[in-house]
Amino acid sequence: MAIAPHPDQLDVERINLAVYRAFEALDLPAMLALWVQDDSASCVHPGWEPLSGWGEVRTAWESIFANTESIRFDLSDVNVMVSGSLAVVRLIENIESESGGEITQGRAMATNVFVRSPTGWLIVHHQATPIAAEDGDEGEANTTLH
Amino acid sequence: MAIAPHPDQLDVERINLAVYRAFEALDLPAMLALWVQDDSASCVHPGWEPLSGWGEVRTAWESIFANTESIRFDLSDVNVMVSGSLAVVRLIENIESESGGEITQGRAMATNVFVRSPTGWLIVHHQATPIAAEDGDEGEANTTLH
Repeated sequence: MAIAPHPDQLDVERINLAVYRAFEALDLPAMLALWVQDDSASCVHPGWEPLSGWGEVRTAWESIFANTESIRFDLSDVNVMVSGSLAVVRLIENIESESGGEITQGRAMATNVFVRSPTGWLIVHHQATPIAAEDGDEGEANTTLH
Repeated sequence: MAIAPHPDQLDVERINLAVYRAFEALDLPAMLALWVQDDSASCVHPGWEPLSGWGEVRTAWESIFANTESIRFDLSDVNVMVSGSLAVVRLIENIESESGGEITQGRAMATNVFVRSPTGWLIVHHQATPIAAEDGDEGEANTTLH
C-alpha cells in the first residue's frame, strides 16, 4: 500500500528541482529568487571556498552563470526530510557542463537546506562535494529534469 | 538586550558538540550511540565516497577510529537551525589529527543534520568538505571543545 507523501515534502521536492532548473536555464534572476537573501545564506560549490552571507552567495552565482555555456543535471538518490519550517534534501548530482568549449562530466553529493518563508520555501544552504564517477548503473533511480 | 536561545537550539548545540567529543575521545560506542541507526543515515567524510545507510556509516566510523591515533577539533562559525523534529548545524572544523605518527592539520566545512527521536536528538547526516587553510585569525569565533 502506497503512503502519499506529505504536501510539504512535495513542495520541497518542487523547489529543489526549481533550483536545478534555474541552473540549467542559466536564469540568474530565477536562481536568485529561490534563495534566502540575508546573512544566513551559505554555499559550498565544488572546488570553491565556502561562501557565507547573501553578498558572497549572489556574487558566486553571477560568476558561475557568466562562465558556464551549458549545464545539465541528472539527480539520483534524492532524499527529502521536512519538519516545521526546515527541510533538508540530500542527493547525487550527475553533471554535464560546458565552459570555454570544453565539456566536463562530474558527480557531486549535495545537501540542500530550505526554510519556509511567508511566500514559500527558499534555499538557505547548498553544499556540493565532488565524488568519483558512477560505479554502477544508477539510471533507474534518476530524477530527470527534462 | 540579549534574547535567550530556544531550548531546542541549546539541545542541538549540545548533541553536535557530543559528536565531536566522541570523535576526539575515539570513543566508538559513544559515537555510534549518537547516530540514527537505519537506512536514513548518511555521511560524506573528506576524501571518501558518500556512505549511505547505517551499515556503511558504522563501518566507516570503525575504520576511522581504528586508524586514528589522536584528533582535535576547534569549531568556528557554528550556525544552528532548528524547526520541529529537524535541525541543521553548519560549521567550520579546524582539525589536527595524528595517524601513523604523522600530524595533519586541516579545515573542513561541515553540515550536520539531526532528527529528534523519543530519546533526544540524533545525527542522521554528516557532510564535510575540505577547504583551504585559514586565511585570517578566526580565533575569536572558535568554540573550543576543551
